[in-house]
Amino acid sequence: MHKLLVLTKYPNEYRIWIEKANLPDLEFVSHPTANCEIAFGEPNRIRDALAALPNLKWAQSIWAGVEPLLDISMRQDYTLTNARGVFGGLMSEFVFGHLLFHEKKIGLHLQMQKEKRWDHADSGMLRGKTIGLLGVGSIGAHLAEMAKHFGMKVRGYTLGSETSKQVDQYYHGDQLLEFASGLDYLVSVLPRTKDTNKIVDENLLNALPPHAIFINVGRGNVVDESALMDSLNQKKIAAAVLDVFEKEPLPEDHPFWSTPNLQMTFHTAALSYPEDLAKVFIENYRLFVQGKPLIYQVDFEQGY
Amino acid sequence: MHKLLVLTKYPNEYRIWIEKANLPDLEFVSHPTANCEIAFGEPNRIRDALAALPNLKWAQSIWAGVEPLLDISMRQDYTLTNARGVFGGLMSEFVFGHLLFHEKKIGLHLQMQKEKRWDHADSGMLRGKTIGLLGVGSIGAHLAEMAKHFGMKVRGYTLGSETSKQVDQYYHGDQLLEFASGLDYLVSVLPRTKDTNKIVDENLLNALPPHAIFINVGRGNVVDESALMDSLNQKKIAAAVLDVFEKEPLPEDHPFWSTPNLQMTFHTAALSYPEDLAKVFIENYRLFVQGKPLIYQVDFEQGY
Repeated sequence: MHKLLVLTKYPNEYRIWIEKANLPDLEFVSHPTANCEIAFGEPNRIRDALAALPNLKWAQSIWAGVEPLLDISMRQDYTLTNARGVFGGLMSEFVFGHLLFHEKKIGLHLQMQKEKRWDHADSGMLRGKTIGLLGVGSIGAHLAEMAKHFGMKVRGYTLGSETSKQVDQYYHGDQLLEFASGLDYLVSVLPRTKDTNKIVDENLLNALPPHAIFINVGRGNVVDESALMDSLNQKKIAAAVLDVFEKEPLPEDHPFWSTPNLQMTFHTAALSYPEDLAKVFIENYRLFVQGKPLIYQVDFEQGY
Repeated sequence: MHKLLVLTKYPNEYRIWIEKANLPDLEFVSHPTANCEIAFGEPNRIRDALAALPNLKWAQSIWAGVEPLLDISMRQDYTLTNARGVFGGLMSEFVFGHLLFHEKKIGLHLQMQKEKRWDHADSGMLRGKTIGLLGVGSIGAHLAEMAKHFGMKVRGYTLGSETSKQVDQYYHGDQLLEFASGLDYLVSVLPRTKDTNKIVDENLLNALPPHAIFINVGRGNVVDESALMDSLNQKKIAAAVLDVFEKEPLPEDHPFWSTPNLQMTFHTAALSYPEDLAKVFIENYRLFVQGKPLIYQVDFEQGY
């Protein structure tokens, strides 16, 4: 029997979905034990349990980002897999919902309704616009596909990979400003790694046209927050939508709360569903018992 | 030479796109003349010019709806074509923008930001939801396709046609309440005809679940306005988004302005672009000069 420890805020929400799959040779344990081989849950809870799991062979994260487990001072003698394929659809709904909110001027129409003002307010459209994706992994690929459904042009900036066929043009390395030039929308889905710190800085923001909208649904470290504030205050870009921040929850005295044309959500762009994450575990467990390589493995060095 | 009269508010916006196509044997005229064969423009302006165009052979409407030309007391001795294939993308952006605005609780997040309240507000998603389309012509087919991209189930209610393959299940005739039962979203794209009056009435609204959202981007005659008001006031459905009304502009004393959970736009869901409409004309003109049947012909009897 393989002993599984579920480490999430509401472990039963996940356990019931895993139990339904009737997986072979699987036994749930409620607390860290020496002979527990598998952990499934939030990376920070797995980190806190690591010392009590000397025989851990595999940890399945329910998040895409696994920063809590990447510190080089920590054990990395087990297979770490993260959650993929789960967040793309949710992120697409968030990103295109917010882009359409801006283009269709939904806020303005609500205001006009309040004022009983019947008027042909000009609204824009996604069709024909150019979206730039900072990072094109499984989430970026989903965004690229949805952008094509809306008739948009898609650019992608990645370290080197060019996996999504929906991206019209890829950019790498020192092509960042070229990538940004002329974008209507810039969307970051980059993870927190040592290479992604403050990629969205003054130079990148200055390369965007003044009507551009920036959305960050990746990680907060990617943005130079004071440069973004300057850019919005000086109307160098039109708007920003941020779901992630350098410090979360965002401190109450942070100027972002009232920066003009900055709209925020609270790291809730893609709240996942236990059923979806249980599926990822189940798929990987079947590989695990057959001794096959797991999918969605994290490279501890790269960080994703 | 075929004489063409452009009858729109800003005729030059259309004329420049048509001129670019260098169509053979085409001559623009600025005013109705006895030998003018072709009219292109807004149906109400074409109606007003009909008497002065005794040799009219073909009228191309720049609208999808051609009600002003359907009155049986009027001439119907010419080929009438309407605008299709132009509005689907625009309507999709409007409909899914508003559905995502509701599901992603964008208004609530704006309010939370004002209150500096960091919280995991529950938001919903389109994936897995069921959308019901009242009318599945070219616009409905586009909505159906986009709904599938978002992972939704699609029902269609039509007179009899079942052209779009993206619709999972079709309903006709007396199956209207069956069609409505259990829908998450009901979207009407029906034109104004003698058969579509008040299809969205008390019975239909009562068949929807209380979390349902109704969107009307077709024509205002389709809705029993007082039944919709009752339904919203009594929270029998969750919300409505209306772009069209029985009387437009909506009278200032109409209770819709302040009906709870009713959001309105001002017949602006799909403001079209002259370039797109010129393309429709150009395509049809090429058929016209070859003596071939035109596309997008309106049946005066059916009304679309």
